[in-house]
This record gives sequence, structure tokens and C-alpha cells, in this order.
Amino acid sequence: MPSNKIKLGFVGGGNDSLIGVLHKVAAVMFDRYEIVGGVFSSNSKINISTANNLGLDLSRVYNNYEEMAEVESKLESNIKIEAVCILTPNFLHFPMAKTFLMNGFHVICEKPLSVTLKEALELKEIKKSKNLVFAVTHTYTGYPMVRQMTKMISDNVIGNIQRVDSTYFQGWINDIIHDKDKRNSTWRLNPEVSGISSCLADIGTHAFNMLELVCGMKVKNILADLNNLYDDNPLDIDVSVLVRMENGCKGTIRSTQIATGLENNLNISIYGSKGSLSWEQENPNYLYYYTADKSLQVLKPGHFYNSKLSLDGTKLPAGHPEGIFDAMGNIYRGVARAIRKEKIKKGEFPTIDEGVRGMDFIEKAVESNKKGNIWIDLES
Amino acid sequence: MPSNKIKLGFVGGGNDSLIGVLHKVAAVMFDRYEIVGGVFSSNSKINISTANNLGLDLSRVYNNYEEMAEVESKLESNIKIEAVCILTPNFLHFPMAKTFLMNGFHVICEKPLSVTLKEALELKEIKKSKNLVFAVTHTYTGYPMVRQMTKMISDNVIGNIQRVDSTYFQGWINDIIHDKDKRNSTWRLNPEVSGISSCLADIGTHAFNMLELVCGMKVKNILADLNNLYDDNPLDIDVSVLVRMENGCKGTIRSTQIATGLENNLNISIYGSKGSLSWEQENPNYLYYYTADKSLQVLKPGHFYNSKLSLDGTKLPAGHPEGIFDAMGNIYRGVARAIRKEKIKKGEFPTIDEGVRGMDFIEKAVESNKKGNIWIDLES
Amino acid sequence: MPSNKIKLGFVGGGNDSLIGVLHKVAAVMFDRYEIVGGVFSSNSKINISTANNLGLDLSRVYNNYEEMAEVESKLESNIKIEAVCILTPNFLHFPMAKTFLMNGFHVICEKPLSVTLKEALELKEIKKSKNLVFAVTHTYTGYPMVRQMTKMISDNVIGNIQRVDSTYFQGWINDIIHDKDKRNSTWRLNPEVSGISSCLADIGTHAFNMLELVCGMKVKNILADLNNLYDDNPLDIDVSVLVRMENGCKGTIRSTQIATGLENNLNISIYGSKGSLSWEQENPNYLYYYTADKSLQVLKPGHFYNSKLSLDGTKLPAGHPEGIFDAMGNIYRGVARAIRKEKIKKGEFPTIDEGVRGMDFIEKAVESNKKGNIWIDLES
Amino acid sequence: MPSNKIKLGFVGGGNDSLIGVLHKVAAVMFDRYEIVGGVFSSNSKINISTANNLGLDLSRVYNNYEEMAEVESKLESNIKIEAVCILTPNFLHFPMAKTFLMNGFHVICEKPLSVTLKEALELKEIKKSKNLVFAVTHTYTGYPMVRQMTKMISDNVIGNIQRVDSTYFQGWINDIIHDKDKRNSTWRLNPEVSGISSCLADIGTHAFNMLELVCGMKVKNILADLNNLYDDNPLDIDVSVLVRMENGCKGTIRSTQIATGLENNLNISIYGSKGSLSWEQENPNYLYYYTADKSLQVLKPGHFYNSKLSLDGTKLPAGHPEGIFDAMGNIYRGVARAIRKEKIKKGEFPTIDEGVRGMDFIEKAVESNKKGNIWIDLES
Repeated sequence: MPSNKIKLGFVGGGNDSLIGVLHKVAAVMFDRYEIVGGVFSSNSKINISTANNLGLDLSRVYNNYEEMAEVESKLESNIKIEAVCILTPNFLHFPMAKTFLMNGFHVICEKPLSVTLKEALELKEIKKSKNLVFAVTHTYTGYPMVRQMTKMISDNVIGNIQRVDSTYFQGWINDIIHDKDKRNSTWRLNPEVSGISSCLADIGTHAFNMLELVCGMKVKNILADLNNLYDDNPLDIDVSVLVRMENGCKGTIRSTQIATGLENNLNISIYGSKGSLSWEQENPNYLYYYTADKSLQVLKPGHFYNSKLSLDGTKLPAGHPEGIFDAMGNIYRGVARAIRKEKIKKGEFPTIDEGVRGMDFIEKAVESNKKGNIWIDLES
Repeated sequence: MPSNKIKLGFVGGGNDSLIGVLHKVAAVMFDRYEIVGGVFSSNSKINISTANNLGLDLSRVYNNYEEMAEVESKLESNIKIEAVCILTPNFLHFPMAKTFLMNGFHVICEKPLSVTLKEALELKEIKKSKNLVFAVTHTYTGYPMVRQMTKMISDNVIGNIQRVDSTYFQGWINDIIHDKDKRNSTWRLNPEVSGISSCLADIGTHAFNMLELVCGMKVKNILADLNNLYDDNPLDIDVSVLVRMENGCKGTIRSTQIATGLENNLNISIYGSKGSLSWEQENPNYLYYYTADKSLQVLKPGHFYNSKLSLDGTKLPAGHPEGIFDAMGNIYRGVARAIRKEKIKKGEFPTIDEGVRGMDFIEKAVESNKKGNIWIDLES
Repeated sequence: MPSNKIKLGFVGGGNDSLIGVLHKVAAVMFDRYEIVGGVFSSNSKINISTANNLGLDLSRVYNNYEEMAEVESKLESNIKIEAVCILTPNFLHFPMAKTFLMNGFHVICEKPLSVTLKEALELKEIKKSKNLVFAVTHTYTGYPMVRQMTKMISDNVIGNIQRVDSTYFQGWINDIIHDKDKRNSTWRLNPEVSGISSCLADIGTHAFNMLELVCGMKVKNILADLNNLYDDNPLDIDVSVLVRMENGCKGTIRSTQIATGLENNLNISIYGSKGSLSWEQENPNYLYYYTADKSLQVLKPGHFYNSKLSLDGTKLPAGHPEGIFDAMGNIYRGVARAIRKEKIKKGEFPTIDEGVRGMDFIEKAVESNKKGNIWIDLES
Repeated sequence: MPSNKIKLGFVGGGNDSLIGVLHKVAAVMFDRYEIVGGVFSSNSKINISTANNLGLDLSRVYNNYEEMAEVESKLESNIKIEAVCILTPNFLHFPMAKTFLMNGFHVICEKPLSVTLKEALELKEIKKSKNLVFAVTHTYTGYPMVRQMTKMISDNVIGNIQRVDSTYFQGWINDIIHDKDKRNSTWRLNPEVSGISSCLADIGTHAFNMLELVCGMKVKNILADLNNLYDDNPLDIDVSVLVRMENGCKGTIRSTQIATGLENNLNISIYGSKGSLSWEQENPNYLYYYTADKSLQVLKPGHFYNSKLSLDGTKLPAGHPEGIFDAMGNIYRGVARAIRKEKIKKGEFPTIDEGVRGMDFIEKAVESNKKGNIWIDLES
């Protein structure tokens, strides 16, 4: 019996890539994919050595993505790559994703989806017309307790949402930002490479995506205050955003790269009329549930009180900590189910719609700030 | 040898008063005060029974504050009340404080200092002309680790401040706000009694005061977004404020009374170029100090690594938790030192200046919101 | 109307005393006591200055406890001291407590109650025959969440107790123990002053007392392993004890003074057939309640879900942290109620019975260790 | 270029196996292994379906381990299985491991290594004579912060070890133990299947292994108190052990399966003359470092202050939580390095020596208990 595994190709993710490890392990975690080829690096030495480490047939290793798309699309269906994982710098996401979609490949793309909203919308159109699966890897949405939080809110456990706060605080850019030479030379702060935003595009979108996901509701409009810290730095590295949700409730999105000493502090807190929920990425196995009249409850993965989707990715009994690889593994499994047209649940993986929303958020936040911190509607 | 204790009078704080207990215990904690008289309640029965419980001479119990000020000011200096503690509803702070100042009494006043900035400025003038001590009880500033945080920032331990976030989240108003009858009848949400703000005046000022205190720096301007939740509620119960500090750095102040299930979550986080500090009122004995290259450090009270002012109020060896009564006790001791003209350190107690700043913050935040969320400079 | 406050005298607790502050503040916290006299220090200068700081009439300050007992017992009942607080070194507890009991005074005594079990039993007899109130200040039992834990276990919320663990870890003795001169000269490790135990007597008894209190059940027998660390140190500084409770369940008591860097880590965890409860002194406002099938619950003071005795001492709304002074204040109030023959609840304060049990535990643990770590029954 | 991946076979770990998922993912995490065959289940249907899911050649799937050993050992060296992962019930570990060793296969075996110490020692002899790699998967030793803790102690950062405490608390057995039918029928509590111990063998060995690992020192002797809870239950489900280490210091090992509501609470705390270290499996990314005079330090993975071996398995920047799969992945990588004769560091994976020590601990603890809680020397 031939394997039913999905044949997966990579663009990027070579041995020198941090993010590559995450995707490669996540892909194989549930025996749903086999990696068969790709362009792992623009450096041909790394490209080959990565393929060798993976034990791949070198005939499936390509010099560039155009060649990969062309050759693979002509292979027989039982051996050809079915889905492509795109892990390249942001400005390459659009042309690559477009090419692969046009040639009939499903796409798993790192965030942000593109450099502009226009590009994102174009990809969405193509994806729709081709009827393919397209995932944008907001990895953190794969954690069991994020899924549980989403379900509890959807089930009205906390009542009407009346305040929201989503934050993503990091401190790693200090070394760069306070050194004139470094901040003027890094690609991170170069608009030609990174587009119109640094902090918003890199992590603010995660906070925004998480907010809309768990609330099951769109952000209606925003008022953003961006901080570049130095006049000779053209891009935001610290952001505070006032938000209003579809239902009229208010709150904030905050993201920063200058919270010195903080690591990767994505935190989402939703306050409802009957209760509140709070979750932190750095302690992902704890979900805090507050009510007015009962004691604080701390939910953890692997228990029967959790929703089916939350339990879906929990592989061991309660008390065996899950980490970021498990979160991404859960997303990959959802994508596999979608590709194989199995029944999937809402929220199993972030789609191109979330990618488009993210680009809209970035553009409108930059616009709000440029116009003197005024309210701007999201439109997409 | 006659006691050198400061003779203290109360206005408010009767047996039925929660806040009264806090002030009475704090006053006697370090043997610096003796309570000798006052008007403990407008209810004469409670007024008398409170005095009896305290073991007071009933000749020093008065029917109203005017009488108290008049009679006490004529008593001989070795027996008369020297300082008055004002614990009445907000709109009474101004007339009472004014009367007592005019009659030569030191004043310890609950926050907010007054109902309007104008009143606050008038009190400040009188206080100055009379050369009296005036404390506004921002109780939380008395915690040892707040004092340690303030000192570390002042000593440049975390470098230049580059982002600030101060929050005060409570959830108690839910029962009232979602019930039309209750929200239309409570004095809390009645502008004639409470003034122009509910949430800002009640707890937002604490978050604002804490921010300016620990930073040793003023907030320059603000952009505030207030939420009344219901159209028939005239006052804010949920607030997000964008702030810019004197040094140009940005951040937020957030306060809410609709964070369901949260108790009294005052949290201050300051991010500097070399490190960050974070503190929470509900776990007041832990100060979190983050740096880029070392492990997280958790400072606790009673250790030699703390500043003198931080150690000042720690009465037992490390590991014996201090609570809110200790925080207020520390403030009372600072006020006693000031009254007795002993040498005091900066930050030993919150003065009328902090009270004035708080009123300015409230008025400008309301104005910013009313004008469509625009930037307004603080002026005082 | 004359004050109904209990007239309180001190033996020890002068200005130079850490523990004195705790007792003095706790005594006045609920307006139930007034301090009227005593022997605050064997140093007459400190004795007098303490009295002056308290604003006392110096005629009520004595040179020694015998004089104090004699003179006070002859004063008229409306002015004489009713209860005496004993805060002296351990070996003085017995003669002082005995003298005051014999002269008709109620006694509040620091732990350990005495140096030997025999003394403790003698005090218990006298106390009984005189029908007086006798409290032994196991301060930590006054915390609201300890009281809540006790009530929940008593109400069978966690079912049958099936395992118990109580620990008290400190690290302060390192500086002394590793320095030959210091360890050979400190009174702490001198059997003539401290009796047969250091660590057990100082903190082990707290862990033992807490265990019996919250379980509402006696320890039946113990097997103790004591560590003196150095051959020239005659007393235990580190202890592990196997215990069996009345109901046959097993567990441990551990106490140490060589847990370097730990402050005052008293921790009690009780595991029942239906649930478990855990509490830590350094975070006294959190009670952790585990069950098999529901999420972890975290109980805090001041909520309606708590028992009456737990709520009894909570003076402010939830979220205002209580500390060690509040815990002692609660105990003092319980003692006041007992002295005034008001109705008191079980567990309002630790009595001489708990003091006797503590002495029994110390003696039997030392005996078990000396005999080669064998099981010994407690008897008292 | 042929892949240099190690060819791995499984015995056990079929689709219905929890532990199988952990081993399969861990094996492929670093591209060091490829799974080529095995006996995944004694149920042939599951055996085949597991192989299909893995995409294996069915000619490499066997009916039993004897057949597997025989056939595979005759295959050519470039295709044959090199290492076998044994995930079967405890009593099968010995015959299987023995067979595979005798046929020249490296072995990765779940713990406990065997049912008796005698068996364990026999395996050790064979392993030595055959010069093969043998790992016993004490998974928790693979966490970065356990490795950091071990290195800090080895580097004398906390000075001389003066007290040790290791615990492993679970609560899952309640449902079984309190139901007479269940407890009399489960294989867990059947000595013929499970050997002489339940709790010690299942989790106590982990606590014991962790203690010897991080201390870099052997346990010298033990005094154990076992609890079966019911007379008709022949095996321990709750254990307290007094221990003395090689250097003379004292402490405890505690393990239980009746700590209701606790999940998988493995905790190790080591107290040294200069500092202390504490770690918990359920929050594996935090290492607590206490000293006498500085603030508490909290170390996390991925920072430069960590040791090389600690950093070895950290695949993403700090703040991306690692979980149990990462811990096992680190162990698998260490084994791969040993098999490929690459340079490995001490402590990269638990060897058969640790497996033998574990069996010794179990046997001696049972003996100590049976003889009335006396001290027994470990011998191996």
C-alpha cells in the first residue's frame, strides 16, 4: 500500500535557518507529510547539504523556485510535490506564493503574508480561483490552550466581550537600535527589504491575529501610535494601538521590540460580562479563567474539560509540557486534513484570510500614525 | 516624659468604613500617632461608638468638621489635634481640607484630592502659604518594592526609559453596570457626586501617579479613549490612554472596572535601554528585573541589596510577607517625620503635588476623549 | 463609657526586638487591646525608652517579671493588666508563664512553649486549674487561607486524607554553621540555652503544628533523621521526619535552616481521596485546590466562597494583600474574644494544647534520631 | 551520497501507544534517524497499519522480536536496522534487550530497565562485552534546564551539597485504587506483571535518577516507607524515602500516585553551601537559583549564560517554549552521536548504568520497607 503522506517541498529552511527546523519537525510530527524536495537555500552548498541531511533524492533539489515550480508541476501525480512551505524573507513571499499557486501547489507560508495589502488580496483571489489550501503560519494559534480559549469564548462562557488587550513584547532589538551603525544597516529596519513596518509586521500581526481569532470577531477600527525611537530609523519598533471591535467594545494592541530583557511575551486577555480569560505564550500550558464569584481556575492541556480541538494535538497525558513545536505540529496536521479533504474544525489552522487581515492591520496602523494618530477603519 | 506622638484627628473612618481601618492601623503601626478625636461618621451613633471602641475622650468627638476645626484650633498646643485624616466622599475633600489647612492643621487626605483641578490648585496654594504637611494617600507607593523600583530607575540601573505601561484593572462594577436600575442609581456613576469621572478618578489616578513616581518624570501629554459601556451611563468605567513622557518615550495607562474576576490589579512596567522592571500590587513583595544578557532577577523586601527607603518599612526578616497595611504604615511614618521636621527622603509619602497632578490627568483625559481622542498637554 | 479594651502587658518586645513590633501592632489592629505596662527589656534604658515610645505611664514599667506579676496582681481590676505577652528567649517561657498564670493573668506566649515537654504539661495543668486563656503564637495559623484550608478539609471537601507533607525551609544559618567560631559560640546552637534542638524547636514545630491544625487530626508516630552538619555542632539544623497520622496515612515533615537562599518557606500540602490543597506562607493569599477532573482552583481571601473564620480577618476588599501582621492580628482578636468570653470558633488561635504537642514532637524526634531512626509514638 | 541516518527499528510503539509517538517524533527531530522497520504491536492489524502510516516497506515489519532480531541481523550492513527502540511492558525489557544486544544491535530502552537488579546487571555485562550503545530513556534528563542545573552543580556554583530533595507526585491512580475491583484487576498492581513495585518502579526511579544526575554523586543508603493504602493491594503507590548521599549530606526522595489532581510533578531541589537550585518538570523552562545575598535568579533556555550542553537542544530563540518532545529529541541526538562515535558530553543521554542504579534503588527500597524501615546500602 503506497503511503498517503503529503509530499512536501520547501523554499528556504536550509540548515542555517532557525525557522526551518520548526517547520520540518512540525511537518513530520503526525506522520502526515514527507519532505521530498525544494530549494532550501540560495547558497547552493547549504541547499545540497540540507537535502543530504534529510536523505533526499538530489534530483528533487532545485536552484530556484521558478525551476522548482516548473519541473515539479510536470511530474507524475503520485510522486510530485503537493504542498510548498515558503520560509524566505518577507518580500519574496508574494512572488513565490503566486507562482506556486498558479502551478497548482498548496501553500504553507510564513507570516507576514506579503509586503502590501494589495499583494495579499491578489494571492487570496488566486487561491480562491484555484481552490487550493493556503495556510499562514501564525504558529501560536496551534497551542491547545489558545484553542480552548477560543472555544470557551465562542460558547459564550465569558458572556459578551467588553474589553480586549493583546500584547507582544520582545527586547531583542536593543543591541541594534542604540547603535547608529547597526540600526542604519540592518535589513530589519530597511524599508526596501522589510516594507513599511518592522515591529507591526514582525510581531504586531501576531497580536492582532490572536485577538481576532480568540474573539471570533473582527477589529473594526484602530488608532495607532508608532515609535521609531531615533530620527534616523525609518521604521516602527514600538507600537501602541487603540482598538474598537465589531461589537463596539474597546481595548488595545501593543507590540514592542524594546522591552529590554523580555523574550517572546505574547499575551492575550479578553474580558467578558460573565468572566475573563488570559493566556501567555511563554507559559502556553496555562489558561487563566476568572469569574466574579468563583475562585480563579487554571486550565491545562490534556484534560477532559477541554474542547475536542484543544485535545486534538495533546499527544501525552496531562503534565507533559507541550511547546512551540507541538503548536506548529497541530497547525500542520490541520493543513494536512484540509489538503486530504478530511473534515476540519474552524480554527485548525490560520488561512490566507488571516494573512490578508494582518496586512490590512499593518497598513492602517501606519496610516493612522502618519496622519497624527487618528481612527482608521479596517476594510478587508 | 510626655509622649512625642502626633495627635491625630479623623474625619470619616467610622466603624462602618473599610478605609478607616486601614488608616487607623497604619497610623499606630510605628508608635508615631495617637488618635485623639474627630468626626468619625455623619451618623451620630456610629460616631460615638467608634470613639468608644478607640477608647477616646468623648469631649473630643464632634458633630461636624467645622465644629472640630474651630474647637480643636483653640485647644492648648500640647493636647490639640495636629493632623487631620480626611476619609470622606470625594466631593467633601476640598472644603474639609481647606478648612483644616486654614486653621493650621496638617492634612492626610484620601485620593482623589478634589473634584476639580481648580480646587486642587487652590489647596496647594493654601498649603504652601501655611507651610503645613499635606499627604495624599496613594497607598500603593508605600510598598517596599515600589520604593526599590523607584530607586533603581533613579540610579539609572535600567538606563534611559524607552517605554512605559501602567495598568489598574478591577472587575467589581459588573454587577452594577449591567443592571439598568443599579447603574442609574449608584452614586459612583452620578456626576453630581462623583464629578466628571468614575474609573479614572477612582483607580486611573493611581496608575498615573505610580507611573510618574517610579519614572521620576512627568507625563507630557495624553490621548485618552473612555468607555461608558452603556449610553445611559454618564461616566467612564473603562479607559485606555496613550502617553508620552517628558523624555519623549511612549507608552500606555489603562484602567478598567469591567475586567471581570480581576480584583485589584495595579501593575507597573518600565522598559529602559539597559533593563526593565515590573511590579504588581497583588504580589507586592516581588520586583522583577529583566536585563538583556543575564537571567531574570526577582528582588524581595528585607534584603541588603535594597535601598534604605525600601528597607525602612520592613519590620521582620525577609520571607515575612508585607501587605497593604504595611504600605500605608510606611506612608504614615513618612508623614510623621515630615510633621516632626525630621529628615525625610524623596518619595517617603505622596504630597499635594501628586494630588494636583492626578486631578490634571483626570481632567485632560476626559477632555481628550470628548474632543475625539486627541492629544492634550498636561499643564500643572 | 469606659473602654472595654483588654489591658495588655509585655515581657520582652522592647525597641530592639523584631518580634515585639509584630505583637504590638497585632494587638492594636482591631482595637481590642491597650498596652499598659510591662518589662520590655532587661536593659533598663531600652525598657524605659520603649515605654516612652508607647506613651505609657512609667509607673507601670517594671524591672523584672516577678515584680510585674506581684505589683500588677494587686492593682484594682479596672486598671490592672489582664493578659501578658511573653516574648523572651525560649528557656524563660516556662518560669514566666507559670508565674503569670499563678497570679491570674491570661498568657500569650511565643513558641516553643517551653524547653521540655514536662514543663509544657505543667503549664497546661496550671492553666486548666486557673481557668485562664493561654495562647501560643503559631502566627502562620492566622492567615485567612490557612483557615479556609482547615475548613475545607474539615468539611470533607477533599475526602479522606491519604498523604501529607509539611515543610519549613530557611537558609539563614549558613553564615554561622560554616564558620567554626560562630557555630561554637552562637546561643542558637548552645544546648544550655536552646535546649535539645535548634531547627525542630525553631521552625519544625510550626510545620508540625500546621499539619495537625489543617488536618484536624493528630500525628500518631514519627521516625526522624536529624542533621547537625558538623561534628562539633551539638544541635540539629536540618531535619527529615517520616510521619503516620491517626487515620493511618503517611507523609513527611521536613524543616531545615541550610536551604541556602530560601527565606521563610513554610509549605503545607494535604492530599485527599477527592482533592488536594496546598498553601505557602510566602504567598499567603493563594490557596491551591486540585481535583481529579476539574481545573486547578486558586482561592484568595475576601471572597464569599470562603468560610466565616477565613473572612473574619479580611479587612479590605479582595485584592488588597494581607501579610504577617494581619495573620497575627487575627490571632490576637481570637484571644481577645476568648478573654471576654465571647463566642469563638475552633481554630481562632493556637492554645496551650498545641504548645504541648509541639514540645512532644521535638522530644520524640530527637529520641527517634538518637536511637537510630526508629518509630516513636507521640503520647501527649 | 547515501544518507548517514541511523536505521532505527521499533519494538512496541504502535498507533495505539502513547509513548510511541514521543519516541518517533524525538527520533526524527534532528534528522539523525530513519525508522525502517520493527514489531510495532503484538496486534498484527495495528502492527501493519503503523508501518503503513510511517510509509515503511512491509518486508521489514515482523511478527515478533525474535524474528526481527534474526532476520535483520543477517541483512546487509547498509540497509539493516542498527538500533532498536524497546517500548514494551516492563517484564519484556530484559529478554528483548538481551536478544538485540546479543545480535549486535544498539538499544534504546524505556525505563525501568528490567524487573530485577539481577537482570539489569546481566544486560550491563552483555552491553559491555559487545561494545554497543545502550540508552535508558529517563526523558526528563533531556530538558535544557536540567542540563544547566547539572553543569552549575558540577562547576561548584552552589558549593558543597548539604541537602537534597527529589519528588515525583502524580494523582492518576485514585480512580483505580479506591475501587476494589479495579485495584485487584489492574496489571499495574499485579506483581506477576509489574514486579515488586508500582510507584517506585514507575516514577520513583525518575526522581532517584534525577537526583544522582544533577548532583553528580551517588545515593549511599536509603530508608524507605512504602504505602499500599489498602491491605488487598500488594504494591506500593505512595513512597517516602530518607536518603544519604556519598558526601554524607541528607535528604528525601518522595514519589506518589495518590496526590489527587497533580499531573506529573517531578521536582528536584539541591541545596548547597553557596546557593540552591530548583527545577520542576511541569515548568521545564525555568531554573531557580537562590543565593544568600543576591536576588533570586530565574534562568531560561537559549541564553548565552547557559552551558553548551544546555544550549545544544535549543532550536529557537529564547522565549519559544520547549516541551517533553524536545527533551526526548535531545536524548535521541545524544544516542545518535554515540552510535556514530562522535564526541559526546557527559550527561547527553542516560545509559545502562543509570538503568542498573534504578533497579538497585527499587529493590533496596522495597527491602528497607519490608524490614521495618531500616537503612540499606545501595551496592551497584
